Amino acid sequence: MEKPIKFAMLGSGTVGTGVIKVLQENAREIAKRIGAPLELKKVLVRDLDRKRPHLEGLALTDRIEDILEDDEISVVVEVMGGIHPAREYMLRAMEAGKSVVTANKDVVAQFGKEMFDMSEKRNVDFLFEASVGGGIPIITPLKQCLTANKITEVMGIVNGTTNYMLTKMTECGAEYDAVLKEAQEKGYAEANPSADVDGLDAARKAAILASLAFNTRVQLDDVSVEGITKITPTDIEYASTLGYAVKLLAVGKDSPEKGVDVRVHPVFLPKSHPLASVNGVFNAIFVRGNAIGEAMFYGPGAGSLPTASAVVSDVIDAARDIVHEAFGRIRCTCYGQKKLCPLDDTESSYYVRLLVDDKPGVLGMIATAFGKEGVSLKSVVQTKRSVANHAEIVAITHTVEHRKILNALRILEGLPVVDEIRNMIRVENDRG
Amino acid sequence: MEKPIKFAMLGSGTVGTGVIKVLQENAREIAKRIGAPLELKKVLVRDLDRKRPHLEGLALTDRIEDILEDDEISVVVEVMGGIHPAREYMLRAMEAGKSVVTANKDVVAQFGKEMFDMSEKRNVDFLFEASVGGGIPIITPLKQCLTANKITEVMGIVNGTTNYMLTKMTECGAEYDAVLKEAQEKGYAEANPSADVDGLDAARKAAILASLAFNTRVQLDDVSVEGITKITPTDIEYASTLGYAVKLLAVGKDSPEKGVDVRVHPVFLPKSHPLASVNGVFNAIFVRGNAIGEAMFYGPGAGSLPTASAVVSDVIDAARDIVHEAFGRIRCTCYGQKKLCPLDDTESSYYVRLLVDDKPGVLGMIATAFGKEGVSLKSVVQTKRSVANHAEIVAITHTVEHRKILNALRILEGLPVVDEIRNMIRVENDRG
Repeated sequence: MEKPIKFAMLGSGTVGTGVIKVLQENAREIAKRIGAPLELKKVLVRDLDRKRPHLEGLALTDRIEDILEDDEISVVVEVMGGIHPAREYMLRAMEAGKSVVTANKDVVAQFGKEMFDMSEKRNVDFLFEASVGGGIPIITPLKQCLTANKITEVMGIVNGTTNYMLTKMTECGAEYDAVLKEAQEKGYAEANPSADVDGLDAARKAAILASLAFNTRVQLDDVSVEGITKITPTDIEYASTLGYAVKLLAVGKDSPEKGVDVRVHPVFLPKSHPLASVNGVFNAIFVRGNAIGEAMFYGPGAGSLPTASAVVSDVIDAARDIVHEAFGRIRCTCYGQKKLCPLDDTESSYYVRLLVDDKPGVLGMIATAFGKEGVSLKSVVQTKRSVANHAEIVAITHTVEHRKILNALRILEGLPVVDEIRNMIRVENDRG
Repeated sequence: MEKPIKFAMLGSGTVGTGVIKVLQENAREIAKRIGAPLELKKVLVRDLDRKRPHLEGLALTDRIEDILEDDEISVVVEVMGGIHPAREYMLRAMEAGKSVVTANKDVVAQFGKEMFDMSEKRNVDFLFEASVGGGIPIITPLKQCLTANKITEVMGIVNGTTNYMLTKMTECGAEYDAVLKEAQEKGYAEANPSADVDGLDAARKAAILASLAFNTRVQLDDVSVEGITKITPTDIEYASTLGYAVKLLAVGKDSPEKGVDVRVHPVFLPKSHPLASVNGVFNAIFVRGNAIGEAMFYGPGAGSLPTASAVVSDVIDAARDIVHEAFGRIRCTCYGQKKLCPLDDTESSYYVRLLVDDKPGVLGMIATAFGKEGVSLKSVVQTKRSVANHAEIVAITHTVEHRKILNALRILEGLPVVDEIRNMIRVENDRG
């Protein structure tokens, strides 16, 4: 067995605690898998005076220099979160010749290019499996196991909080506000839930996934984002009746005609789709490639130990590269700069729910209005939810450009018989 | 861009054809991902005179020496199948300093150790992602992405033929013989279906998965095997009513107390389990580890292009190692020799279906007989399927040792009121 590979950890919160636990429990196996023991030499903390029973026996420091200047440390694990100073510390660590492992989706989504460039320049590893899908192996499969493919589609349930909420709304018919409150009580949602429910967390992961899948640089600003705040139990009930599950998806598509199209929004997904039965806080990423056809990766999308699983596996990977002096086998794979598809040009089927006057001929008028704008309907149903001379109409369109559905809705809004456009949700992967 | 990485292919059947197609379609991307073009220099065929339009323009040979002695060839892809001479050719290729990529589950399951030893001795890669689950990335995740974990369970739907048949039996209530015939007509099942329906194909994959997951050597003979030939539409109907799907699973478990337990057999799986909704010819592998909790990998388990996806991705991996002179980062991970759990000591819940005399008190007698042998029942139901004074009883047991359920069935068989033990099927992952 070779001499120990020593690493340092920046931060000691939820993920850091998980990393320490995994190392303690699986140390013997991990040493065998690397061919050398793995040793956590130093932990960077903000406040040295704070009691941290779980860090007992570990060397703590509040100076990043203690780590950067320590030549024995060959890998730096960043689990402090946030952009600053995480970004700067990682760059400095690589500059100092250390490989970096991170769980930081914010930095990877916004400063990924800078990170890859530095790792290349200094010939060290920059690994970030934990940045998307928690413990689920998805980054390595995209960089390695699926490299024979042209990937045309990557779709993921990548935010556990919103998936938990939508699952609860589906199972219990509960209102959005009630499930949000429950998710907050259970610790699944933050006091300020915006990053989750507005889709921003998912958007960062969408940018990372699309960049890797399509070998191009997708920035956070390139992702069009819509959260789940407008989803009602009524929409979910209609979805279920029509054979769909409602999910918040990160969607990336790449086609020679349209370019790269990346977005986060709620969708109607056929119940037969593998992602449709991914429930609760679980995550899953679905990939379509021109050789494999379809594949899906499923597991816990967050949590101390699952995220630590990805982080420590990356550390093992970096350590193997150190033992075998094999850095840089897999470089930044975002080598291209493909054109982006403007949101208006994206194509999808749509679910549209309208409140209309309940009188003969309305359904025909609605269908005609859609048709005039070039939106062909797959089905249109007037429901029995009639209140005081009003009824709801639910339409599912065939595939149509986003601009056309927006035009159609504008026209519909102007019709005297239409009282309200209650919702519009994309329908993805409709095989029918 | 560096000079081309040249490789040879042994065999040009279904998978080989897929490999050529994937290389042709994705050549430009693949070159970028490796940092050097990939070139198929020679193909070994059995009969040089046979017309092969899909090999047009490729250099064919019927002499393995033409490949082994060609120093320009640095990777050999084995897609001929069968054990001999595939095993010998792969060993000779590695001996000659070439990395080897294979889709051959038979050789990996039976001669894996020999292959790993040779690759280590000669410092070349031996890669076999395509040997389990077709295009699904599962070997690399086990060797790399999940290495932080102690894996305690690996369960897979790893045979598309039987999964297609069970799916059809479930959806249409069709008999075994009818769906087998249909599967044969569709080309999903061989004229002699034994390797699939008797579970031998799945057993080879179980041995490979368990070896990697538990870091020990599991041989084909160590796997207890039972096929799907005894499954009837009646069993499937009962399963469905009770909330289960019937699947043929490769199951591997590792515990400090029991040791390593590897088997292939039909199971009742709760419908909420992620594997339960994997239907048709799709495969999926479910992994439980002490850090990640649970993860699942899903995709097409066979077919020309999906299998080529895994093969070519492995070739890209080997080529990257050549470009970066980084061989042997990940060695044989089956470094241990853990004790095996004898079949009699394995534990499971069981579904038992009996034909009994339809008279008062029978259900009590059955339940009592189970109890006497230490088998505790979760439920026991006398069904209405009564024919000529006979009725069926369906029992689901709590977790019990295999030897105990066998003893109980022996006792039951001797009871005058029991006419026939119609089936016994394991229940896996019952959380209730």
